[in-house]
Amino acid sequence: MKNYTSINDIDNIKAWIEEAKALKQNPLKNVELGKHKTLGLLFFNSSLRTRLSTQKAALNLGMDPIVMNVSGDAWGIEFEDGTVMNGNTAEHIKEAAAVVSQYCDIIAVRAFPTLTDKVKDESEQVLKAFVKHASVPVVNMESATGHPLQALTDAITISEHTKKDKPKVVLSWAPHIKALPHAVGNSFVQAMQKMDVDFVIANPEGYNLSPEITKDTPIVHSQEEAFKDADFVYVKNWSSYNDYGKVLNTDPNWTITKEKLGDAKFMHCLPVRRNLIVEDAVLDSDNSLVIQQANNRTYAAQLVLKKILENG
Amino acid sequence: MKNYTSINDIDNIKAWIEEAKALKQNPLKNVELGKHKTLGLLFFNSSLRTRLSTQKAALNLGMDPIVMNVSGDAWGIEFEDGTVMNGNTAEHIKEAAAVVSQYCDIIAVRAFPTLTDKVKDESEQVLKAFVKHASVPVVNMESATGHPLQALTDAITISEHTKKDKPKVVLSWAPHIKALPHAVGNSFVQAMQKMDVDFVIANPEGYNLSPEITKDTPIVHSQEEAFKDADFVYVKNWSSYNDYGKVLNTDPNWTITKEKLGDAKFMHCLPVRRNLIVEDAVLDSDNSLVIQQANNRTYAAQLVLKKILENG
Amino acid sequence: MKNYTSINDIDNIKAWIEEAKALKQNPLKNVELGKHKTLGLLFFNSSLRTRLSTQKAALNLGMDPIVMNVSGDAWGIEFEDGTVMNGNTAEHIKEAAAVVSQYCDIIAVRAFPTLTDKVKDESEQVLKAFVKHASVPVVNMESATGHPLQALTDAITISEHTKKDKPKVVLSWAPHIKALPHAVGNSFVQAMQKMDVDFVIANPEGYNLSPEITKDTPIVHSQEEAFKDADFVYVKNWSSYNDYGKVLNTDPNWTITKEKLGDAKFMHCLPVRRNLIVEDAVLDSDNSLVIQQANNRTYAAQLVLKKILENG
Repeated sequence: MKNYTSINDIDNIKAWIEEAKALKQNPLKNVELGKHKTLGLLFFNSSLRTRLSTQKAALNLGMDPIVMNVSGDAWGIEFEDGTVMNGNTAEHIKEAAAVVSQYCDIIAVRAFPTLTDKVKDESEQVLKAFVKHASVPVVNMESATGHPLQALTDAITISEHTKKDKPKVVLSWAPHIKALPHAVGNSFVQAMQKMDVDFVIANPEGYNLSPEITKDTPIVHSQEEAFKDADFVYVKNWSSYNDYGKVLNTDPNWTITKEKLGDAKFMHCLPVRRNLIVEDAVLDSDNSLVIQQANNRTYAAQLVLKKILENG
Repeated sequence: MKNYTSINDIDNIKAWIEEAKALKQNPLKNVELGKHKTLGLLFFNSSLRTRLSTQKAALNLGMDPIVMNVSGDAWGIEFEDGTVMNGNTAEHIKEAAAVVSQYCDIIAVRAFPTLTDKVKDESEQVLKAFVKHASVPVVNMESATGHPLQALTDAITISEHTKKDKPKVVLSWAPHIKALPHAVGNSFVQAMQKMDVDFVIANPEGYNLSPEITKDTPIVHSQEEAFKDADFVYVKNWSSYNDYGKVLNTDPNWTITKEKLGDAKFMHCLPVRRNLIVEDAVLDSDNSLVIQQANNRTYAAQLVLKKILENG
Repeated sequence: MKNYTSINDIDNIKAWIEEAKALKQNPLKNVELGKHKTLGLLFFNSSLRTRLSTQKAALNLGMDPIVMNVSGDAWGIEFEDGTVMNGNTAEHIKEAAAVVSQYCDIIAVRAFPTLTDKVKDESEQVLKAFVKHASVPVVNMESATGHPLQALTDAITISEHTKKDKPKVVLSWAPHIKALPHAVGNSFVQAMQKMDVDFVIANPEGYNLSPEITKDTPIVHSQEEAFKDADFVYVKNWSSYNDYGKVLNTDPNWTITKEKLGDAKFMHCLPVRRNLIVEDAVLDSDNSLVIQQANNRTYAAQLVLKKILENG
């Protein structure tokens, strides 16, 4: 594996999960592997878990993490080809990516979507520009349309907590006041499609994710129907895909409650808005796996970095 | 010791001071103690000394420091319980603290007071929320009402520079144009109350610190009276406690001058506004200990981290 | 060498270049030299290459880099002597520099010019204040009037790529929409004056650099004339020096084209605005050395840090 940009870069999810679990048992086993190698973490957007867990993962491998807030610390970056750069951007991605590649052995990038320009977002302009112009491997720390480190984390967490060979997993939309990206939802769908699970998506009408992602995964417009006999309920808000980036619905009936959840485990990538997405009673119960998920972020990132280093 | 949140966490200040002095003689003695352990430094507010000295302290113990400006780098954090989070905050401290605990072996937090809401500030909402919801030890890098790393530093510095068994120490208010916190003053008072010193506070009327802090420490409203035969004059501005957070007085007669100071040593936690708090002639003289204090910040932090690591 | 503040700190540029090339062959040779030593990188302005390459250089020497955005992370710094600090600045450079010296073994500083106050800029207020008040060595990561790490990089790059004993090197101005500093141009001129090269400067009328810098280096107002038989064309915009900080000319006829360049190598310190400074065809051709220059930033910085550490 050269880059880790999407769930499709996982050749065998079952094997990856087992390897991540082994890393978790012995996080410092490969502490010599990344010695004197640097990981550049480039943030175009805010981050808490990704920022810390990816640094921790790098440290566990003996790497030196170098963090940069691209917008605040450096120069405005131009992504269009052929532009006369007489506006707000001061440096072209062609140079930026090639330059960072001189100092970092792996580049990890976070760049959220516009949510106003579907074509641009789906082109994954920023991530793909780094892949194209960097001379070193690139890791996706959440791009316009995917968050594969999160989805790998989620797959590990489900594998750790399932009591069945083939658990029922639901991805449920929940209400939010802001227009949020589809990235986490998309990658979770793709990960579940690779897993041996009984998988269904619940969202209001007008909120179906891209059909190129959901493919033949069943989509229902009723949480009640979807949650029946569920073992894991993975909750996330996203804005409309069809009416791109719009907030069409903030119906509190879609908020996750303890009653709705029943015995199912609750999952969320965080940050989560309490009592908007999910009521306190769920997050504060033993059925919530959100902290365990956050912990697994380290081992998902560490596995990805390890595979890249071993390939290098 | 699990957490270091206030001067009250120091069981024996004399022993701590001696241990810090020993560390200073041999800062790398415990460089294996923190190996492969991370210190998360979370800043809700600006910092220079604390930011650098705490990182240096961690490095001296072999730890990996991870710095985050919470406001700029991550998400707005909610501290109230039961809120419907449909406003500006995106993540609850319950999750944030628990999550950071997955990646950091110790969490250090800086969060200043509002200076508009006394009840909220005295509840130490942010610091206490971290202590409550983090699963790892928490260090106070200046909270709403205390700055115990600074006060430990100051105790070490006085111990190093005193020529008497029981020196006279004055805490003097000095004028400032902005409303400043009580944290440094509070913790210094508490530290001096534990030390074998002759201690008095000088401040204008209306500027007495909280009586819960000052207890039976004498307070006078005359620098002249207080500075008589003083060995150490510790200077700091704070806003009114009684008329909470207000600037009632910017009287330049309270500015510290070389003449007023006489042979006493001048101390200040920094940053200090020259010729407002204190005239140049004092800071530029050999009587000033401000740089020595700044240096001791490293060893105060290192001692605290060492004690926590040894307890872990 | 104590500090590295200008090209004049290089005693023998030929020897330095050879040493840097040797470091590049074996970057980890001195990885024990900086062990348990910290490099403080203080940024008053944006940075990409300098920020990353100087960290990488420090890591190659085993140092621990500590990065701080002075404006965002810490306090407003006062540089004037004798001021009554009742305005926006909260800490005087006298304290700030002395304090940072307690935590860092070397301090590296980036502070751009005002471009409105020539006298202030030429006094190098910020850099010189650090040199004066710091008790540890200071490295210039681009100051008001010089960028000697960049110029050392450029000298290394020319030395690596020249096919002649005495190549012809041109420094050419190119158009830009914003008022840019003279620092890169100045230091490049000074470096070339120390090298065994045939050196000429091309810029429009009104754009001559300071005569104190250019001395007897020939200046022509025609790219065509200057580029004739050139081996290296180093391109950079700067604002007028005479009509200080003004943009007098954005003539696109000064944009660098493939046709103008011919067989000469193209150099630029980056960031570069495509199709304003230089057309895509140049940057995307094999004649461009900009990425190789960026790579050499690491070894220029590493050489400087190594010399300081060895002297320490």
